[in-house]
Amino acid sequence: MKKLISVGILLLIGVLFIVACGGAPGTGGTPAAGLTVDAAAVVQARGLSSDDIYAAVKTYTPSGKTDPYIMIASGGQSGQVLVIGIPSMRILKVIGVFTPEPWQGYGFGGSGDEILAGGKVNGKDVLWGDTHHPGLSETNGVYDGQFAFINDKANARVAVIDLRDFSTKQILKNPNAINDHGGAFVTPNTEYVIEGPQYAAPIGYEYAALDQYKDKYRGLITFWAFDRMKGRFDQSKSFQIELPPYWQDLCDAGKKVSEGWVFCNSFNTELAIGGNNPSFEAGTTKNDTDYLHIINYKKAEEIVRAGKAKQLNGMMMIDLKTAAAEGILFFSPEPKSPHGSDVTPGGEYIVVGGKLDPHVTVYSFEKIQNAIQAGGLKTDEYGVPVIPLDKAMEAQIELGLGPLHTVFDDKGYAYTSLFLDSAVARWSLGGPYEKKHPEPGWKLVQKLPVQYNIGHITAVEGDTAEPGGQFVVALNKWSIDRFANIGPLMPQNFQLVDISKTGDQMKVLYDMPIGMAEPHYAEIIKADRLKPWQVYPQVGWNAETMSVDPKATLKEADAKVVRNGNQVEIFMTVIRSHYMPEKVEIKKGDHVIWHLTSLERTPDATHGFALSGYNINLSIEPGKTETIEFDATLPGTFTYYCTEFCSALHLEMLGYFLVQP
Amino acid sequence: MKKLISVGILLLIGVLFIVACGGAPGTGGTPAAGLTVDAAAVVQARGLSSDDIYAAVKTYTPSGKTDPYIMIASGGQSGQVLVIGIPSMRILKVIGVFTPEPWQGYGFGGSGDEILAGGKVNGKDVLWGDTHHPGLSETNGVYDGQFAFINDKANARVAVIDLRDFSTKQILKNPNAINDHGGAFVTPNTEYVIEGPQYAAPIGYEYAALDQYKDKYRGLITFWAFDRMKGRFDQSKSFQIELPPYWQDLCDAGKKVSEGWVFCNSFNTELAIGGNNPSFEAGTTKNDTDYLHIINYKKAEEIVRAGKAKQLNGMMMIDLKTAAAEGILFFSPEPKSPHGSDVTPGGEYIVVGGKLDPHVTVYSFEKIQNAIQAGGLKTDEYGVPVIPLDKAMEAQIELGLGPLHTVFDDKGYAYTSLFLDSAVARWSLGGPYEKKHPEPGWKLVQKLPVQYNIGHITAVEGDTAEPGGQFVVALNKWSIDRFANIGPLMPQNFQLVDISKTGDQMKVLYDMPIGMAEPHYAEIIKADRLKPWQVYPQVGWNAETMSVDPKATLKEADAKVVRNGNQVEIFMTVIRSHYMPEKVEIKKGDHVIWHLTSLERTPDATHGFALSGYNINLSIEPGKTETIEFDATLPGTFTYYCTEFCSALHLEMLGYFLVQP
Repeated sequence: MKKLISVGILLLIGVLFIVACGGAPGTGGTPAAGLTVDAAAVVQARGLSSDDIYAAVKTYTPSGKTDPYIMIASGGQSGQVLVIGIPSMRILKVIGVFTPEPWQGYGFGGSGDEILAGGKVNGKDVLWGDTHHPGLSETNGVYDGQFAFINDKANARVAVIDLRDFSTKQILKNPNAINDHGGAFVTPNTEYVIEGPQYAAPIGYEYAALDQYKDKYRGLITFWAFDRMKGRFDQSKSFQIELPPYWQDLCDAGKKVSEGWVFCNSFNTELAIGGNNPSFEAGTTKNDTDYLHIINYKKAEEIVRAGKAKQLNGMMMIDLKTAAAEGILFFSPEPKSPHGSDVTPGGEYIVVGGKLDPHVTVYSFEKIQNAIQAGGLKTDEYGVPVIPLDKAMEAQIELGLGPLHTVFDDKGYAYTSLFLDSAVARWSLGGPYEKKHPEPGWKLVQKLPVQYNIGHITAVEGDTAEPGGQFVVALNKWSIDRFANIGPLMPQNFQLVDISKTGDQMKVLYDMPIGMAEPHYAEIIKADRLKPWQVYPQVGWNAETMSVDPKATLKEADAKVVRNGNQVEIFMTVIRSHYMPEKVEIKKGDHVIWHLTSLERTPDATHGFALSGYNINLSIEPGKTETIEFDATLPGTFTYYCTEFCSALHLEMLGYFLVQP
Repeated sequence: MKKLISVGILLLIGVLFIVACGGAPGTGGTPAAGLTVDAAAVVQARGLSSDDIYAAVKTYTPSGKTDPYIMIASGGQSGQVLVIGIPSMRILKVIGVFTPEPWQGYGFGGSGDEILAGGKVNGKDVLWGDTHHPGLSETNGVYDGQFAFINDKANARVAVIDLRDFSTKQILKNPNAINDHGGAFVTPNTEYVIEGPQYAAPIGYEYAALDQYKDKYRGLITFWAFDRMKGRFDQSKSFQIELPPYWQDLCDAGKKVSEGWVFCNSFNTELAIGGNNPSFEAGTTKNDTDYLHIINYKKAEEIVRAGKAKQLNGMMMIDLKTAAAEGILFFSPEPKSPHGSDVTPGGEYIVVGGKLDPHVTVYSFEKIQNAIQAGGLKTDEYGVPVIPLDKAMEAQIELGLGPLHTVFDDKGYAYTSLFLDSAVARWSLGGPYEKKHPEPGWKLVQKLPVQYNIGHITAVEGDTAEPGGQFVVALNKWSIDRFANIGPLMPQNFQLVDISKTGDQMKVLYDMPIGMAEPHYAEIIKADRLKPWQVYPQVGWNAETMSVDPKATLKEADAKVVRNGNQVEIFMTVIRSHYMPEKVEIKKGDHVIWHLTSLERTPDATHGFALSGYNINLSIEPGKTETIEFDATLPGTFTYYCTEFCSALHLEMLGYFLVQP
């Protein structure tokens, strides 16, 4: 009885409140500060707390309103890249990168086949990837919205995505490495995309026994030169630097005061070779410190230009001895088994998360430079000068268990993921950032529990020279009890965190399951920096060459089938709701070259093209031209049809493909 | 100034309201009927209406609370199946079905390769599909949460998904058809999964010229017998029925009073053969009516048992003449180019959506039976008895433009998608349903605009004998301006609709972009009907055979590498955070058989296994055993490593795979 009455009172208050605010139920569009009777009843029935309601109104994005931020997340072992709206946490697109994606016609007969072929390993198809660290193109250290880059940890490959059509344009295999981790890190004007290594291997991943580890195994950092006009990597202008076989991990490019340098951590200076006695997990964590790698890539560029690099498997390479001798490579100790290496917005500091150390360690770029200038540095066993920690360190901040990766905001705070504590640590930067927040510098401000076991963390433009604030996303690895049970393979959990207020006011807003692989890192860009096309610029557009295709069929009257010996070339047009021609009849064994051009100019009027039995499917967006080529090995009666529901007569959009025996 | 004041008043009211309700900000867990000051400020800043707030609290699902409904949606031309929580509209899993999915280890070396091989077309890999109509297993016409079935329109294949681990167990190619559409329709006790055809082709898709269309091309309906104990289709107990070359489209199995029958529509009784003069879109829409196909599959079963069917390419087939003569197949006219054929919960009526007709047409099963009993029916040109429309029809309801597909609720309403009107029509059922709703029967009650161009529609258990009500999802095909622009290939838009109230009170609650192909149909099941495993039942579980694998390695001490000539068999264990063994050294050309067993028993402690350069990736959930087999053709130094962030020392979970030249 008591409960009934209190519900009644709540509803009554709800009604009064609506009257006071003038927000009647059902008046879409009128801003309302209260809850309608209906909404109050839902809140009651669903047991929502006031924090829940806050989170709901902070994240809910009504039909037709668009997300102000876009997250570009790696797709982990799906091999893809995810595009996610923030704060609604909705997936806008899965971009096919290393793995064929039939729905976008990527790898099933069209131009995507050629792009995927760029990723062959020793001539063989490898049709998946483990995408780790996306990097957005930058101008003056700030995202410019033009390109995204991504690496494949499993096979040491890199890819270029054009953000005009959010599709992959290039995949390249690193000819001298077999895996990487520190993936696509962009220099402040996208001169280079940096691919770090991971597990050491002989250069060119040639065979060498593990007992020759110290001498024959090596680390390797690659600077892929990017041609912004062409939108492609230029391997001829790219170079690599040989490193000791310490497992280099994440990197970050310097910016502003530290532009021209890159900083990578490492985690097997023990030179452990596994074998379960001890296992790698024990062998690689024996020492108290590993080495932060401090690399002057502008100097490296000069050395390559000066002819002091050698070519190896089509890549210019600076050997370890030259790198050490020429002032390209320096080390400084870092607490054991670190993960993140993250440069502050102004470029003054490098923050290293110590994984097995409860602190983050902050290095000063100025101190590092002073130590290098002062000279007299001892070297490691590979001859690389080592800057003592006390000559490089600015601060150490105790945050908790398992600090991994750090990002920044506009209020002078840093955010570090704590894997073992399952928490996001907010802490205050010192130096020039100290005046931005109420707290003293270099102090832990808040630890926010997340669910569960956060790996990477990302913030709005939080790894650029001008972080945006507002939101952090915790990329949690375990979800266990967070979502409805769907079997043993559970989703990851991306949690959206509100960082709009200072002090200890961070809040978890939203749990987003990722039921499709395990993204490792993500970058968040302001949506208004992106200028994507809604339709391709002209009818006949080839999305691989990014120009009009000479084989495009620009009007229906030009559609035709041309036979030349046993080669049949088809020039087909595609528009609601028919293909022209609707019948293609050939002979078994004919070689078929089939060009398809969409004559559509209406945004979203995408057509598909599925050819039964032949493993072919295309996505033909407005204006696009695609070409497929195959041998007609299978005789019979087949159909081709539109795989995107384009119109009321979509099911009638088909043709017969007849292969005479 | 005025605006400042009104904001101030709103905030003040907010404070008072909080005090009145006792829901202070930050007190997670306390139900609150009002908006806190913070929440009111967010509502103001984001311009949310009272309808928006209602939708937000109706759909927002706080961390740790799970969705009460699960939607199983086809993944369209991705080839996959999506698992989505409702009302939060979050993707919980993408299940790999027809397309390899590396992150779930499906098609990249493990047992998924064998399952995918079941889908070969004439011996060749077809590694994508166009999944259309998922069907959940039923007991007494109600979902039982055990299995999901899905078809591939592009290649006429069907698949079984086991809902204990939400993974694909079987793919079968239909040996006599090359495409389908009317996909996986389940009989009330899952005796059969029905695969309808789509575009007619000669049986066995052998070559025949189009001018022989009338005589040589045929439709075909397939009844795949399902062995519930084995969780597999049993082709030996399955059968097909030859149909005229009218393009049969969607079907629905009868239930309760109509159990034993199935109803399919069709849309090319014109026998158009395309060729652009006229095109298919004109040629197939000339007639005012097509034929509803009325099939007695219990009778068909008897005919097969009686030996009156022939075997063709491994399937029993009832020919058209026998089907017509034995009372298996009847027609009744239906308004031109229909799409949906949907049986009411009690089985009394069949609702056909007329695509190019503004009505839905409701057929009475009782009238159909009476007409059949009365006899004297004329036949079509293929000899099939035709029941005149006026002898079969119960009602016609004018709904609007482009009615496609219909589902039902618990209040006696039907919901029909209107493609051209871009709307969901709610209308009242008559007959025994009339007492459930306030309106008279067979009347349009509300047309709710959706954004845009809805194809299928689904409701909570809305195609079963006991619909659940609460929610409808509109599967919209175009999204255009609904989401942030991400290039020419735009997402679909699933809109969640609140149907909890009677009358014209339907509301759109939520827009969910599907940035990954175009789902066609979905079914929504109450989450508590599902009983998925959190870990596999025993260590050593083979998820393909659903039993303990004889090659499993049950403890670390048993891990070993066994050489037998040039065959190397590896028995490996997997547990946080190491593989045992951590090194495998072999010779180029060796044949490798590699068994991996997870010793984990902790839910969510999934490990991956990526083998660089060899196109191999596995997902090894707790307790699972996987086996890969390959020839070591590529010499060199490779690594295998864990692709699921399993622990703080996840990066240290690796081994070296050394292939001596």
